[in-house]
Amino acid sequence: MASPLTLQDLGEDAVVQGLVEMLPTGAFDVLRGPGDDCAAVTIPESCRVQLLKADSVVEGIHFEPDEDMKRVGWKALCRAISDIAAMGGIPKHALVTIAANPKMPWGRLERLYLGITKAAQHHSISVVGGETGKTCGPLVCSIFLSGSIAAKDLVSRSGGRPGDVLFVTGLLGGSLANGKHLDFEPRLKEGQWLAEHHFPSAMMDLSDGLAMDAPRLARASGCGLDFATNNIPCAPGCSWEQAMGDGEDFELLIAVPAAKVESLNQEWKEAFPNVLLTKVGCLTEPDRGYLPREIFTEGGYDHFQ
Amino acid sequence: MASPLTLQDLGEDAVVQGLVEMLPTGAFDVLRGPGDDCAAVTIPESCRVQLLKADSVVEGIHFEPDEDMKRVGWKALCRAISDIAAMGGIPKHALVTIAANPKMPWGRLERLYLGITKAAQHHSISVVGGETGKTCGPLVCSIFLSGSIAAKDLVSRSGGRPGDVLFVTGLLGGSLANGKHLDFEPRLKEGQWLAEHHFPSAMMDLSDGLAMDAPRLARASGCGLDFATNNIPCAPGCSWEQAMGDGEDFELLIAVPAAKVESLNQEWKEAFPNVLLTKVGCLTEPDRGYLPREIFTEGGYDHFQ
Repeated sequence: MASPLTLQDLGEDAVVQGLVEMLPTGAFDVLRGPGDDCAAVTIPESCRVQLLKADSVVEGIHFEPDEDMKRVGWKALCRAISDIAAMGGIPKHALVTIAANPKMPWGRLERLYLGITKAAQHHSISVVGGETGKTCGPLVCSIFLSGSIAAKDLVSRSGGRPGDVLFVTGLLGGSLANGKHLDFEPRLKEGQWLAEHHFPSAMMDLSDGLAMDAPRLARASGCGLDFATNNIPCAPGCSWEQAMGDGEDFELLIAVPAAKVESLNQEWKEAFPNVLLTKVGCLTEPDRGYLPREIFTEGGYDHFQ
Repeated sequence: MASPLTLQDLGEDAVVQGLVEMLPTGAFDVLRGPGDDCAAVTIPESCRVQLLKADSVVEGIHFEPDEDMKRVGWKALCRAISDIAAMGGIPKHALVTIAANPKMPWGRLERLYLGITKAAQHHSISVVGGETGKTCGPLVCSIFLSGSIAAKDLVSRSGGRPGDVLFVTGLLGGSLANGKHLDFEPRLKEGQWLAEHHFPSAMMDLSDGLAMDAPRLARASGCGLDFATNNIPCAPGCSWEQAMGDGEDFELLIAVPAAKVESLNQEWKEAFPNVLLTKVGCLTEPDRGYLPREIFTEGGYDHFQ
């Protein structure tokens, strides 16, 4: 008998697509469902929209077992904040669930929560609840984060159009090697500013590498994609392949209509003089297809491969 | 050197208390924070309150590795629904995170989502997002659920007063042995009805057993507790010790002011003729203390011991 198809055989995107297709079509109040950085749902009788995000970090995958747990806690919450930032929103309430080995030293769990608390206070988020449970396996910490945005400012992955220019904030690559993935500052102010000023047609945060994430934005927008591979803002010591593929950058990827590019470049420099904003490509007609993944030495991070 | 204090050494309640004490005091919009069945936060300019709940199921702890994953999915979502029910609320939007071994057969994950989807449709909940990740350990499935309730109807654990009578719905005990923990129907209608009719001074759902959970309600309400141990509604084949201690009942525990007991008994029979409502004790002055756990053969479920 053939062995059953595993998650590894399918790969992350196919697994997610398979699961999403099983879910019932969203109710009328669901503005953005599975597949975007956050879900967006209406708030009755309000001009604001609620953003909902769930995310996990797993010992041995997202952090080493001997890592300082305070940094892990910071990372756990800031990953979810980064997704709220990618929709232009303001994060507000967090819940934390933990599956931990009963033999885990209390001091390590305490430091995890110290890191979560530090990130929460830094971003004016209230940690309002959670749940602790037991596992014999590696620590799993799941974060749920809700926030909101004015309905008129909502940005998602799917609004890009052929011809839109793609920008990224900051520098890419080397995050896992240099520790940035544990200490990064989510681009919350930048995401809010961009959404308020209606510059992006589409936006997402970069967690699995530009090579993996940019095609996701293009697909969600029904577009093809051209990279400006000679213009990738590489972190010090990184090749462009590393910048495209390392992942865990937690920078913003922004699609901007060509007509708004000049004023964005000008206003950005005034608003964020210390944050790079670099053109890395553009969206194309869908029949142009995507730059094939195979050309990258490191092709971005697939969670099941 | 002494070995460090572990979660097991402390036990679940002490771990949770230690973590909760670390969290910053809630902002003005947090009506109920960590420690209640759900968090409750204000919705700006609304007469409703938002309820937020996070909960996990772990392979080998909450379900056996060879269990039908569709039942596990049902359980995973219904556990969180039960907490919304315990506040009297209406559940609305769910997010699902999974940490899974890449070698897991796709068919098992598919059945998990079938069960989640079935529970969602049955309770008019939209699954609006989530996250999949990798672990080398047991499967961890975390559910985040948001819902709402009219602010004037909000019930929590902490409103009980000395003299209030304690009721439970249904029958207790044997849930893990007879499979009820995988197929239970959360007491959603009952919780909503109770809250709307303003019967409970305090309410919670029973997940760790009456012996463990009733003292939690009493403590949250600043009360002591007397059990009517000769009146526990035991499931068929269960001793009262099992009914008190088995856990995973997902019934409601309700504190009712003595003056409302007669009308509750009367109206309940009309509203829910097929659901038992049984007096199991009462809240007392705090100096009466709690019935010591040691008298139970099975003392309820502690997740870290």
